[in-house]
Amino acid sequence: MSETVTTNGMSRREELLAVATKLFAARGYHGTRMDDVADAVGLNKATVYHYYASKSLILYDIYKGAADFTVDALHDDPSASAREMIYHFARRLLVGIAGNIERAAVYFQEGPYITEWFTEEQVAYIREKETQVYEHVRDVIDRGIASGELYDCDSHVLALGYIGMTLGSYRWLRPHGRRTAQEIAVEFSTALLRGLIRDDAVRQSSPLGVTVEADTLT
Amino acid sequence: MSETVTTNGMSRREELLAVATKLFAARGYHGTRMDDVADAVGLNKATVYHYYASKSLILYDIYKGAADFTVDALHDDPSASAREMIYHFARRLLVGIAGNIERAAVYFQEGPYITEWFTEEQVAYIREKETQVYEHVRDVIDRGIASGELYDCDSHVLALGYIGMTLGSYRWLRPHGRRTAQEIAVEFSTALLRGLIRDDAVRQSSPLGVTVEADTLT
Repeated sequence: MSETVTTNGMSRREELLAVATKLFAARGYHGTRMDDVADAVGLNKATVYHYYASKSLILYDIYKGAADFTVDALHDDPSASAREMIYHFARRLLVGIAGNIERAAVYFQEGPYITEWFTEEQVAYIREKETQVYEHVRDVIDRGIASGELYDCDSHVLALGYIGMTLGSYRWLRPHGRRTAQEIAVEFSTALLRGLIRDDAVRQSSPLGVTVEADTLT
Repeated sequence: MSETVTTNGMSRREELLAVATKLFAARGYHGTRMDDVADAVGLNKATVYHYYASKSLILYDIYKGAADFTVDALHDDPSASAREMIYHFARRLLVGIAGNIERAAVYFQEGPYITEWFTEEQVAYIREKETQVYEHVRDVIDRGIASGELYDCDSHVLALGYIGMTLGSYRWLRPHGRRTAQEIAVEFSTALLRGLIRDDAVRQSSPLGVTVEADTLT
């Protein structure tokens, strides 16, 4: 069957995916039936099943799209500095999230349950992409430490934290908010790379304002 | 009825709450029935209903516990510096999350749907606590900017980012992992407050390694 293009320029399949993404984001995958998807997109259920043989295949398309997008956001220019790569990663991710908040929401909301809905191969594909993203950010930090550009730090923990800070923004990022996605990326990466403390002596000698070793009781 | 204390020192109600939290975290609130909770805790359903008249009251207890805990983690010592407050907030939150990963997981996983399960008053209570936490972190950053301790920055965006980085750690934080919760708090707050770039000239003149204004195309 040839692709039917709808009035908004999306193919029927793309439109179906966009509508299902909104429904899953609002009601959860478990709380959305194929009937709801058919109603919302204005097709009969048989036509919906023509495009997607099961509800889980829609969910997988959402996951695959988000995972592939995130891997594509990795900035793999070998001549770039660690700080450039950290900034560009945040910028591309945030712009992408702002352009499809619901997809990011579904991705995180359904994450704990995907092994229930997906085949082993599907789960393995998603996990492999997630590992690629984590390892890329960790390796960028490690290379920055090795070259002397960055302070020695726990690249594992910071990669997880920075990815969480960036991807977690789907909770409050709004495409037409006070700040653009790019401005938010600048704020995040500047804070992480330059730090917030002005006074260089304070910054180097006492960044947390306390002696951490003695501070385990409260 | 007097509280029955079980062999592990928890009251029956606490035990019920802990078991339900684990089930909700693994299967989702929607996917867990009161029968499952009764089976898992080894009580009959009537006894479960004695403690919690509905499944949503269990979920609310989980939410209220997490929200109250997070507000209690705010460090409100007026003599503390902004950097001390930022560090202590992360430390208390991470230690608390490490002590009850499932509670944090339920809190985030069910977040988009709580208006379905909770009364308006219950939702308002949770939202008020969340607002208190956000405003506290934002105000700490604002006071740090005003006193000259911190660089000028977008305190709104950074408060949301820092809270997301910290709370989002429930996804990968493990109570007996390679790093303790306190060590992770030190990594996060050091990166944010001191920054990652070593060279002070680079750090101040070109923290992102690019001129941001010209960089809007790729």
